[in-house]
Amino acid sequence: MRATVFHGPGDVRVEQVPDPRIEQSTDALVRITHACICGSDLWPYRGINPWQEGWRLGHEFVGVVEDVGADVRTVRRGQRVLAPWYFCDGSCEFCHDGLSTSCVQGGGWGARNNGGQAEGIRVPWADGTLVALPDGLDDNDPLFAAIATLIDVMATGHHPARLDIARRFGATDVVGGDDEEAAVAVRELTAGGAPSVLECVGTKAAMDLSFAIARAGGMVGFVGQPHGTDVVNIRRMFRDNIALRGGVATVRDYIPELLPEVLAGTLDPSPVLDMTVTLDDVPRGYAAMDQRRALKVLVRTSV
Amino acid sequence: MRATVFHGPGDVRVEQVPDPRIEQSTDALVRITHACICGSDLWPYRGINPWQEGWRLGHEFVGVVEDVGADVRTVRRGQRVLAPWYFCDGSCEFCHDGLSTSCVQGGGWGARNNGGQAEGIRVPWADGTLVALPDGLDDNDPLFAAIATLIDVMATGHHPARLDIARRFGATDVVGGDDEEAAVAVRELTAGGAPSVLECVGTKAAMDLSFAIARAGGMVGFVGQPHGTDVVNIRRMFRDNIALRGGVATVRDYIPELLPEVLAGTLDPSPVLDMTVTLDDVPRGYAAMDQRRALKVLVRTSV
Repeated sequence: MRATVFHGPGDVRVEQVPDPRIEQSTDALVRITHACICGSDLWPYRGINPWQEGWRLGHEFVGVVEDVGADVRTVRRGQRVLAPWYFCDGSCEFCHDGLSTSCVQGGGWGARNNGGQAEGIRVPWADGTLVALPDGLDDNDPLFAAIATLIDVMATGHHPARLDIARRFGATDVVGGDDEEAAVAVRELTAGGAPSVLECVGTKAAMDLSFAIARAGGMVGFVGQPHGTDVVNIRRMFRDNIALRGGVATVRDYIPELLPEVLAGTLDPSPVLDMTVTLDDVPRGYAAMDQRRALKVLVRTSV
Repeated sequence: MRATVFHGPGDVRVEQVPDPRIEQSTDALVRITHACICGSDLWPYRGINPWQEGWRLGHEFVGVVEDVGADVRTVRRGQRVLAPWYFCDGSCEFCHDGLSTSCVQGGGWGARNNGGQAEGIRVPWADGTLVALPDGLDDNDPLFAAIATLIDVMATGHHPARLDIARRFGATDVVGGDDEEAAVAVRELTAGGAPSVLECVGTKAAMDLSFAIARAGGMVGFVGQPHGTDVVNIRRMFRDNIALRGGVATVRDYIPELLPEVLAGTLDPSPVLDMTVTLDDVPRGYAAMDQRRALKVLVRTSV
């Protein structure tokens, strides 16, 4: 089958790789119909993360079950399914507690494992990982853009920094300008700082801004994968009792709640996907996101 | 009056300074009967914090009201009082929310302000800051050691690292050894990490150990004043959704709850005070704590 393979910074290629197959009785094989390119895929692409030649790319995919192992109970051949950006057994203590990202038998797509920007993929722990989609969808259904956002970007809470999209999603006050101006403006709007702040980027600059606009006794939540190490203003946290909580999105736990809203059309996060490419054109999608010509790219792997 | 004055690392002196006086109608003057030397007083003493010659020392004191300004309502002359390690107006948004340490008109004792290791002190915002003690105590009452711990050390949650005192206070499992051994032992005892971890020192080593023994989805609380900046394992926090919350102890908010227990004898944190000196012997107290011959020193300023 064809899959997206890393060859070096700026060099991702779609090429032939061995077909995946059932290895464990709890596996499923999925033929991928749609995938996404994620902002975090740009990290190896830009040479920021050390990656090895030959590693697979992509951790966001939707597809159709082609085969299941003998112990798989909750999905069947021919069913359309959605996976979170990781796999998880669905049965350990952490999966039961809504923290499936810390599953004791879990792991990630891509890198040494099979990637999602491909024609197919082996899914470990299919019962714990996959969420069945309703019957009656076909590959061309426009709902797939919204459905695909549930894999990572919607449930992670990361909305692109474009202010017009923020307004479209209901933002009442939009503050731009440089960080220092923005901090002054937010402290003024909130009479001293906001009780809750979401840091959605992962850079030190965004984390600094978050602490600068947090109210004493408040909470900074973070969803962006942190770059670097010395990103936390521990002195501000200490002096004003500000809390910090965040981390990877436990998407598998959120999908059952969000999917019905997307299917009903009451929740539509699809505007974040503003470019669509075929599998062969995945390298062009990376370049577009890298050059900021696209916010996020949908990959039609079945056309 | 006599007060403790900083002259340089390792050089604190008890010397004559001008008597404090009422400056605002909300002030009180307090004759100090007992003070403490705090672990954080050792920071300037050891030259870790940049301090200027002439700055005052001490932020933990108990005493008797000598005079009050015209607008003071809740304490009266002759009354014994306890102050937290800071002053606060008792009326702002943060004081109302139990976050008196972030009081918009608040501040600290010592440094440029009057210090608590002295014969007397001017207390701003006396109504918001001071807590009245019951009548019938005299300067020699042994309860003062326990009462003095409420100013900072008890309500801060900092218990000395001595394991025998931990056991005396009810610890069921005590883990020592080097940090790596301790982390392995705690992860084993808790089958994968503790849901709640308290970091009580403030060093990077203690913070690292805290994240090493925290369970996925858990919470690290910190009460020690953080040394340095790059002390937070943001990658572990992100990967396993671990929260971090802590900061200065909002002691003024806790004292009303803790004081009745101390007065009734059901709570006795006084074992942490294992040395007593007179005011003139304060430099000897600093040296004893610096050389770890004393855990924490009580100062009898009235004898």
